[in-house]
Amino acid sequence: MSKLPHASAPAPLRRSIATVSISGTLAEKLAAISAAGFTAVEIFENDLLYFEGSPADVRRMAADLGLDIVLYQPFRDFEGVSAERLARNVERVKRKFDVMHELGTDRMLVCSNVSPDTITDDALVAEQLGALAKAAGEAGVVTCYEALAWGRHVRTYRHAWQLVNTVNHPNLTLALDSFHTLSLDDTPDAIAQIPGGRIGFVQIADAPKMQMDVLEWSRHYRCFPGQGDFALADFTAQVVKSGYTGPLSLEIFNDGFRGAPPAATAADGHRSLLLLEALTRDTLEAEHDTAHAAPLYHPPAAPTHTEWQFLEFAVNDTARAQVADWLGKLHFRRAGQHRSKNVTLYQHGSAAIVLNAERDSFADAFFQRHGLSLCASALRVDNAQLALERAAGFGYQPFSGRVGPNERVVPAVQGPDGSLNYFVNEEPGQPTLFEADFVLTDVDGPTEVGPISGIDHVSLSLPAGSFDAWVLFLKSVFGLQASAPVMLPDPYGLVRSRALFSADRGLRMVLNASVDQHTAAAETVRAYHGSGLSHVAFTTADIFRAVTEFEAAGVPLLRVPANYYDDLDARFALRGDFLDALRQHNLLYDRDERGGEFLHAYTETLDQRFFLELVERRGGYDGYGAPNAAVRLASQARQRAQSQK
Amino acid sequence: MSKLPHASAPAPLRRSIATVSISGTLAEKLAAISAAGFTAVEIFENDLLYFEGSPADVRRMAADLGLDIVLYQPFRDFEGVSAERLARNVERVKRKFDVMHELGTDRMLVCSNVSPDTITDDALVAEQLGALAKAAGEAGVVTCYEALAWGRHVRTYRHAWQLVNTVNHPNLTLALDSFHTLSLDDTPDAIAQIPGGRIGFVQIADAPKMQMDVLEWSRHYRCFPGQGDFALADFTAQVVKSGYTGPLSLEIFNDGFRGAPPAATAADGHRSLLLLEALTRDTLEAEHDTAHAAPLYHPPAAPTHTEWQFLEFAVNDTARAQVADWLGKLHFRRAGQHRSKNVTLYQHGSAAIVLNAERDSFADAFFQRHGLSLCASALRVDNAQLALERAAGFGYQPFSGRVGPNERVVPAVQGPDGSLNYFVNEEPGQPTLFEADFVLTDVDGPTEVGPISGIDHVSLSLPAGSFDAWVLFLKSVFGLQASAPVMLPDPYGLVRSRALFSADRGLRMVLNASVDQHTAAAETVRAYHGSGLSHVAFTTADIFRAVTEFEAAGVPLLRVPANYYDDLDARFALRGDFLDALRQHNLLYDRDERGGEFLHAYTETLDQRFFLELVERRGGYDGYGAPNAAVRLASQARQRAQSQK
Repeated sequence: MSKLPHASAPAPLRRSIATVSISGTLAEKLAAISAAGFTAVEIFENDLLYFEGSPADVRRMAADLGLDIVLYQPFRDFEGVSAERLARNVERVKRKFDVMHELGTDRMLVCSNVSPDTITDDALVAEQLGALAKAAGEAGVVTCYEALAWGRHVRTYRHAWQLVNTVNHPNLTLALDSFHTLSLDDTPDAIAQIPGGRIGFVQIADAPKMQMDVLEWSRHYRCFPGQGDFALADFTAQVVKSGYTGPLSLEIFNDGFRGAPPAATAADGHRSLLLLEALTRDTLEAEHDTAHAAPLYHPPAAPTHTEWQFLEFAVNDTARAQVADWLGKLHFRRAGQHRSKNVTLYQHGSAAIVLNAERDSFADAFFQRHGLSLCASALRVDNAQLALERAAGFGYQPFSGRVGPNERVVPAVQGPDGSLNYFVNEEPGQPTLFEADFVLTDVDGPTEVGPISGIDHVSLSLPAGSFDAWVLFLKSVFGLQASAPVMLPDPYGLVRSRALFSADRGLRMVLNASVDQHTAAAETVRAYHGSGLSHVAFTTADIFRAVTEFEAAGVPLLRVPANYYDDLDARFALRGDFLDALRQHNLLYDRDERGGEFLHAYTETLDQRFFLELVERRGGYDGYGAPNAAVRLASQARQRAQSQK
Repeated sequence: MSKLPHASAPAPLRRSIATVSISGTLAEKLAAISAAGFTAVEIFENDLLYFEGSPADVRRMAADLGLDIVLYQPFRDFEGVSAERLARNVERVKRKFDVMHELGTDRMLVCSNVSPDTITDDALVAEQLGALAKAAGEAGVVTCYEALAWGRHVRTYRHAWQLVNTVNHPNLTLALDSFHTLSLDDTPDAIAQIPGGRIGFVQIADAPKMQMDVLEWSRHYRCFPGQGDFALADFTAQVVKSGYTGPLSLEIFNDGFRGAPPAATAADGHRSLLLLEALTRDTLEAEHDTAHAAPLYHPPAAPTHTEWQFLEFAVNDTARAQVADWLGKLHFRRAGQHRSKNVTLYQHGSAAIVLNAERDSFADAFFQRHGLSLCASALRVDNAQLALERAAGFGYQPFSGRVGPNERVVPAVQGPDGSLNYFVNEEPGQPTLFEADFVLTDVDGPTEVGPISGIDHVSLSLPAGSFDAWVLFLKSVFGLQASAPVMLPDPYGLVRSRALFSADRGLRMVLNASVDQHTAAAETVRAYHGSGLSHVAFTTADIFRAVTEFEAAGVPLLRVPANYYDDLDARFALRGDFLDALRQHNLLYDRDERGGEFLHAYTETLDQRFFLELVERRGGYDGYGAPNAAVRLASQARQRAQSQK
């Protein structure tokens, strides 16, 4: 019998992560990495140095967890040195080869020299890399030479490859790291030309675009693929096209990850690799390169259209009365009562709000923890089962709650804060979700009862540590795109804000997190209200009509200082009557470069953290009025200060 | 009667701060600024925009608090524009002049244009600044033109001054900002040549040296004078030599300050200006320029020599028994019992430790809040009264505690965490502090009872938000110098660390703070032990003897992983027997560039947060073994993990 693998079933790439990417002791790190689904790991030297036990102990610990140690790293400043220094470096590297044998790994990362006295002579460097290769060959290990973006002489993968190719020795290969290439605005398009077998190792890291020293940027701000700004699917497609079949390995230096619980970080790392593979597959398939796409992760497709069926808030009786009062004044109608639970449905246009006051329920637990808050979202998608399978494939936990008689079973997954995301698709001829679960009060009545047409966006206030977990959740489960993050000044600290949206804008989410330590500590997010508060923005086609009606009905709108309008006038030179109308109704205004306009108003705040927004978009305006956020935050701070007097 | 001021009593410079420097609503900011001792304030435009009230209301509010509004800022992108744009800008600035009249201020900051389409023609720019000056003259206000470090055309004060000098109009003056000059590594030495009357405003900001985009650096990382790395006394000396007599005004954009309580931030700002004035005075007096030095703040001199008389720990009975047991094993002798309180004195060499278990005392309150911790330090200085006056002059709170019969009254001030700092000087012929306060058990007995000779340094674990407050405290009260900050990797998050020391090294303090939000939140500093723990380091002249004796006595030393010594060998190529001795005794090792050596060992941890260190310095080593901190932190994390199993 032949033992050759079947040609039509290419082996998937191995998913790996460097121990430096997550927090904890080495034992804690390896346990978290294994639990997240990785099968391979890079051992970062310092993690070994701090470990009280031998390299062989580490090998056994990893093996017991089903992890292969695929790399030992880093070895620094080997090449471009004097003959005397070279001799010492060869002795030094041989000791590390001994460690590698004990560890049971055959691959070492060697970084290009960063020393100011590096000799910048390619012929000499190649000769010395040859000495490295020879020593590696004698020890039976493979060295992988990596160009650091801040290397003294060798900074690009092209240069490193030219040297490796010159040496032409099986025990010296090229190592790639997406950060080192993309941080220099270098293009990855020459990677596909390198023989895949000559690439010894591939590290993947994303990062937000920043104008700063590249070494500091690399050491503190790397993040998982999909959380930053690099075009990693393009990079990875080049790698796959080269014929490389080794591991894709995350190497993330991130100050936040260093302090976060290792299990959650490792889980996000694993799903970020799955998402990267899926996007790389899309890139290759768009080029009709199905052969190279084959080994990459293939999730069920993301929904082509997503919109909110309803938003469900966790309330107690007091909060329910308050929110119901506001919804009434906003001309929502009470549309139904849940068949078995203490849950009420309100509708206005296509916007539906569910208030869940059921005791001892999921919502109740949420209310105990977070107060009045968004505990669930129901999302109308083209294929709910497919959406669930996609989410589960990315490692998000499917959820089944208590279901009463006549209620529909709705698939759901939990978001990073434990909130539920239901996937709903209505089948022709079947009762709708609302019909199935609720006793509807006025089945055939109009839902177009006022100036609100639907939900524009939902804004979440998050602990800073979960911000990037949410970005990954929304990108992977719903296929959303992310805008560039912005910083908003609250009177009590900066707020990081980022919008995510579907291609057709059916779903828009805004994530906010206080970056300051006083306001951001999870314990204080509720007690201290300096952070961006959770809110829901409703769409209207005529905001002047809407605010007039709602003010008459008694909805308290947030007051905007007169000084704001003086400045608005200086900035935009608005028509006098238009400016007067804005001022009169406490409306905020923004205009984009193409003339699109955004008019919006906020309610005052309920329960010290929750408010509503009305928005009118004109002429294709696609933002969220970020320039006005500081005015809103300052007005809310003043409102709180007054209410506390 | 003449109203001219007396020639020999020059008016002090006014101390001012920009509202953007601290957190809160405008009303909160002004109240904090006034309470801190400032008499002048810059109104940052956004603070006015967000204020619900007229500019006249702000004027009244400031006046009621004794604050003059000395500047309105900023006005942007006025000059180097098309004729059409210029006309709009003149209209725009006139509206702001109206606001200034209402505010009751006559001075406006105008920043150099940052727009990519700025016209880079000095003649045109001067002509347009002339139009600005003319409009300002008509409105009766003075514009102050500032070169932003990231201006499109005008980036240096020399360039800005050349333009202002060309225009030569009394309503156009030069504005200086230390950040914009020093961030570009520009020298301030041409400032003294500018006529002081032509400098309209001076802003002061410090910052840590960073390799990053200067705009981002300026917007997020500025700090108070003395907290960063800029040579601000040199800068300010140039300003004073120019003959400038206007305000010195802090303009600090700092993410941390934006989230910190405004009163404490403003108080630190005020004392940072006092310290800057004192250092500027020193600089001028060193040049024998007493005339220019005269108006600057003149504090009592810092102590020329400072050393610890004793360290006092807050304990309960359990912690006292534990610490006393350790001190005994470290060959400290029980030297006395306090005359009236439940307080015990231990001595070894010149190191003295006081354990305070008195109920309902200051120490008890400290123990309730912080657990086993350093609640007081007694510092031997040349003149205690002078030291107290200096500290009080910088705005630190003098403290008087309960004093029993026969006890000496010892002056003290409170540090940023509320801990006490006693100033002690022993007068010839008078009983010593120990004799006065304690019943000494063996008055004439030897204190040289073992290998410890004294205290090398004290390390404090701080909430991140108080780190820079401590830097200012130690610099201003004791005249300490600060080393560059370093980042130490703990398994559960990065730790920021900075050493401060007196010129003769009689006093060495190390400040540590976790930078990660998980570990740094004030609530979790005790519960979560990832941060650098508080410890005291004792000096020995023979660490091998010391650890041998102490191990024999049963002191538990922190175990160091064997892998550490393998790496140490690869790094330093140590003698085999020396390396073996280090390994055998769990000693850590470092060597500086000049061959100075540092040998040190740690005890295990008491109360999950407190430990002791033994250090031997050889050959003038002046650091703290920072390269070994990660090994120590990892070993401590492992020790905790094991103790929790």
